Amino acid sequence: MNRGLTLAELAKAADGAVRGPATVRVRAVAGVEDAGPDEITWVSHDKYAGRLAGSRAGAVVISAQFGETPMPAIVCEDPELGIARILAALAPPLPRPPAGVHASAVVDPSAKIGEGAAIGPLCVIGAGAAVGAGTVLHAQVFIGADTHLGDACELWPGAVVRERCRLGNRVILHPNVVVGSDGFGYRFSKTRHEKIPQTGVVEIEDDVEIGAGSCVDRAKFGATRIGRGTKIDNLVQIAHNVKIGANCVLVAQVGIAGSASLGGMVVLGGKVGVRDHVELGDGVHAAACCCISKDVPAGTVVNGIPAVPNAQYLREQAQVRRLPEWSQVMKDLLKRVERLEASTHD
Amino acid sequence: MNRGLTLAELAKAADGAVRGPATVRVRAVAGVEDAGPDEITWVSHDKYAGRLAGSRAGAVVISAQFGETPMPAIVCEDPELGIARILAALAPPLPRPPAGVHASAVVDPSAKIGEGAAIGPLCVIGAGAAVGAGTVLHAQVFIGADTHLGDACELWPGAVVRERCRLGNRVILHPNVVVGSDGFGYRFSKTRHEKIPQTGVVEIEDDVEIGAGSCVDRAKFGATRIGRGTKIDNLVQIAHNVKIGANCVLVAQVGIAGSASLGGMVVLGGKVGVRDHVELGDGVHAAACCCISKDVPAGTVVNGIPAVPNAQYLREQAQVRRLPEWSQVMKDLLKRVERLEASTHD
Amino acid sequence: MNRGLTLAELAKAADGAVRGPATVRVRAVAGVEDAGPDEITWVSHDKYAGRLAGSRAGAVVISAQFGETPMPAIVCEDPELGIARILAALAPPLPRPPAGVHASAVVDPSAKIGEGAAIGPLCVIGAGAAVGAGTVLHAQVFIGADTHLGDACELWPGAVVRERCRLGNRVILHPNVVVGSDGFGYRFSKTRHEKIPQTGVVEIEDDVEIGAGSCVDRAKFGATRIGRGTKIDNLVQIAHNVKIGANCVLVAQVGIAGSASLGGMVVLGGKVGVRDHVELGDGVHAAACCCISKDVPAGTVVNGIPAVPNAQYLREQAQVRRLPEWSQVMKDLLKRVERLEASTHD
Repeated sequence: MNRGLTLAELAKAADGAVRGPATVRVRAVAGVEDAGPDEITWVSHDKYAGRLAGSRAGAVVISAQFGETPMPAIVCEDPELGIARILAALAPPLPRPPAGVHASAVVDPSAKIGEGAAIGPLCVIGAGAAVGAGTVLHAQVFIGADTHLGDACELWPGAVVRERCRLGNRVILHPNVVVGSDGFGYRFSKTRHEKIPQTGVVEIEDDVEIGAGSCVDRAKFGATRIGRGTKIDNLVQIAHNVKIGANCVLVAQVGIAGSASLGGMVVLGGKVGVRDHVELGDGVHAAACCCISKDVPAGTVVNGIPAVPNAQYLREQAQVRRLPEWSQVMKDLLKRVERLEASTHD
Repeated sequence: MNRGLTLAELAKAADGAVRGPATVRVRAVAGVEDAGPDEITWVSHDKYAGRLAGSRAGAVVISAQFGETPMPAIVCEDPELGIARILAALAPPLPRPPAGVHASAVVDPSAKIGEGAAIGPLCVIGAGAAVGAGTVLHAQVFIGADTHLGDACELWPGAVVRERCRLGNRVILHPNVVVGSDGFGYRFSKTRHEKIPQTGVVEIEDDVEIGAGSCVDRAKFGATRIGRGTKIDNLVQIAHNVKIGANCVLVAQVGIAGSASLGGMVVLGGKVGVRDHVELGDGVHAAACCCISKDVPAGTVVNGIPAVPNAQYLREQAQVRRLPEWSQVMKDLLKRVERLEASTHD
Repeated sequence: MNRGLTLAELAKAADGAVRGPATVRVRAVAGVEDAGPDEITWVSHDKYAGRLAGSRAGAVVISAQFGETPMPAIVCEDPELGIARILAALAPPLPRPPAGVHASAVVDPSAKIGEGAAIGPLCVIGAGAAVGAGTVLHAQVFIGADTHLGDACELWPGAVVRERCRLGNRVILHPNVVVGSDGFGYRFSKTRHEKIPQTGVVEIEDDVEIGAGSCVDRAKFGATRIGRGTKIDNLVQIAHNVKIGANCVLVAQVGIAGSASLGGMVVLGGKVGVRDHVELGDGVHAAACCCISKDVPAGTVVNGIPAVPNAQYLREQAQVRRLPEWSQVMKDLLKRVERLEASTHD
């Protein structure tokens, strides 16, 4: 069992300051209700302060505004960020294959493997491919010919990156991610769909993370592009020639159709669909399950199927909720008007 | 070609009784219309009795209430269950790798492989992992360090279970299932999304089955948990820290966001979405394609986007269907009221 | 760098005719705005003719009706089809493993490998399987026992085809496709879901293409069937016993529930859901994100959740957009009727 870390060590990791005895040790992070004496918890809002009274936690992460606490504390500008960093400091080390190429991997002699890179068991690396320094391929990863991975990337088992693609530094591909599969393009000719070759590539910038089972298709020509720092959840579909800006967040099961483009800092909730060729401006937010079929200007929050500005969506939904009632009112009105007409024509 | 089984043998498998000659042999199961003389069919409801007249089936599975049949019958309490068991009895044996570790598998010396377990070709098993007795890893499966699989599990090719996860007994993972991938968690800090480490695990109880390509993320801390006997279809997303009760049924392409919880016997239709932190009580049923954004009490049937109780949904939808008609009525009413006003003010 | 091809060569590939100097060489395809002097572009509609004026493209593909162009042209009946063929002619060759069986592949001695077939590294092929002439398994592919692949198929890394399935000729499976996984079938018995064995198979006809991460379940008995020339995008779910006709197009994240059937030339937009046992006639088109819960006659365009004929959907949606306005009109009407009633009863 790990000995844990002292509050002094954790405060350093979290860029915070200790209130109370700095030599207290904790071993793990837990919620306020669950935490025991050897665990640290956090309070993100002052309104949750009351919960601390009953907590058995050995320490707590709080913001500077926060008052007295029944246990030692680490004060951070952003407690959520602080606890994330403490979680990282206390995390068990990730099991990774050792640097070098595992004997069972099949690596083309022309591939370049960077310093300290780890190519785990049963990986396949094609001709002319390059793997950057410190990059880890856990196991059973496929890297196609002439594909280049940057430094310090991490590719989990079953990830597939087809030929001629480019990944920046610190890119994470979770298990069974597919990058560089053919875009979905056909032209109907007489009696059959003729395949339009998908000759382009995928370019993924630094610090992008792609969740398990997600797919990013290569471009028809040119590149499908995912901008720096963008985070993509599981089972997301990115079609050919899509352009995604920096620091976007795409929640699970999102689907983006061909040639759509997203600005920076766009947030798409789970299961959101974006139609082909649609453009979303910087900072667009889309509520879960909505389907976007038209361009959306920067900064707009949208919702619904088809998606409309959220305020409009809420107004419309409120009315849909009242439709059964309105229908009664309408029937009643009809009768009253009939009566009025009868009496007027008397 | 297999010789098939006698009705006596099949009745035993189905926990039923033979009506007619018990030595009749059948080789396969087929629908009432398609079945030939060497096949057995079934009738689930008395209302389908008429179909039997024209059937060429060699035998039929029926309930005790059912009348005379033109061919020999097996009488079962639940004909659907009976035919399922007969299907199992007649099924060709599943091809499985032999017990032991295939020469091409990469198994850490510290991993424990149970008695009779079969580790197929090109599997990877990490340090400290344990595989229970009789468990089958077909091929190309990845088991991370310190992950424990119970007895009599079956993992199909491409399944990935990352480090430190726990699977019970008789768990089935279909091809390309991912268990234990990182949850989707970030905290924005100045100019970038800082990754919140996902240090927890996944715990899957006995008799759980997970469909092809589905993903179950590990918890931020603690565990993502799937209860005993729950069945999950293909391409389903289970986010970090989700808790799923016993004997739930999640149809294909369902997505459950972080920290949501489901009671026991919950049924979610295809493509249903559940928002983060939402709680669904025991026995909740959600119609296909609905999106659940609020807690749902036990036993409720919900539908719609956003999901509401099904009776309310049906009332509202009926009104939406009539909106074009109501809009005409409304325009007409407006005119009539204007006329009334004009005549009144005369 | 490739030397490219002459317009004469490209016109031949595109079944078109050169207008202007046939010896001009181009090396790649690009959009009208992006194309440089060594690239060829295309104009699909006369209305885009104006864009050509400012283009630096070395050549352009046009239809016969099109007027003068500022650069040499290739005239094709269908410029979209012409450029697709030119793209194919100019595409860099796909990297493929050489014919024969890679030393690291695990191929059962009873499997039959056709002439010129290429079995790439770390593939697994089961007993009694057959791989047709010229078929390519890139790497890490799994072919189950007694499964037969036709000629000239292409299976990308991570594709899994379980036992006893049949693929026709020229079938493409993109990375991590799953074919032949168990259908999702249970029968509740007392305290648990009893698994209904899925003893059927999957049959995929000639010229079918299936996108990355998509899943096709095997039938309960009989076959799940995908018709000739049908194209399926990424992350699509096809449940057990589904029948899909010829030349259908299923866009990403579509889900088709058990025993549903599609005629020929059906087009389903992204994320469309089709309920179990529903029948869609020939040529049905379904708009993205709709959910089809009832049979749809041939040739119908549907939209909405639940899906209705598109014209009806558009009428209803137009009214939903106007609901907040109608609700004001209604309130106003109520008051006016009250006033009328008051004055009438005076």
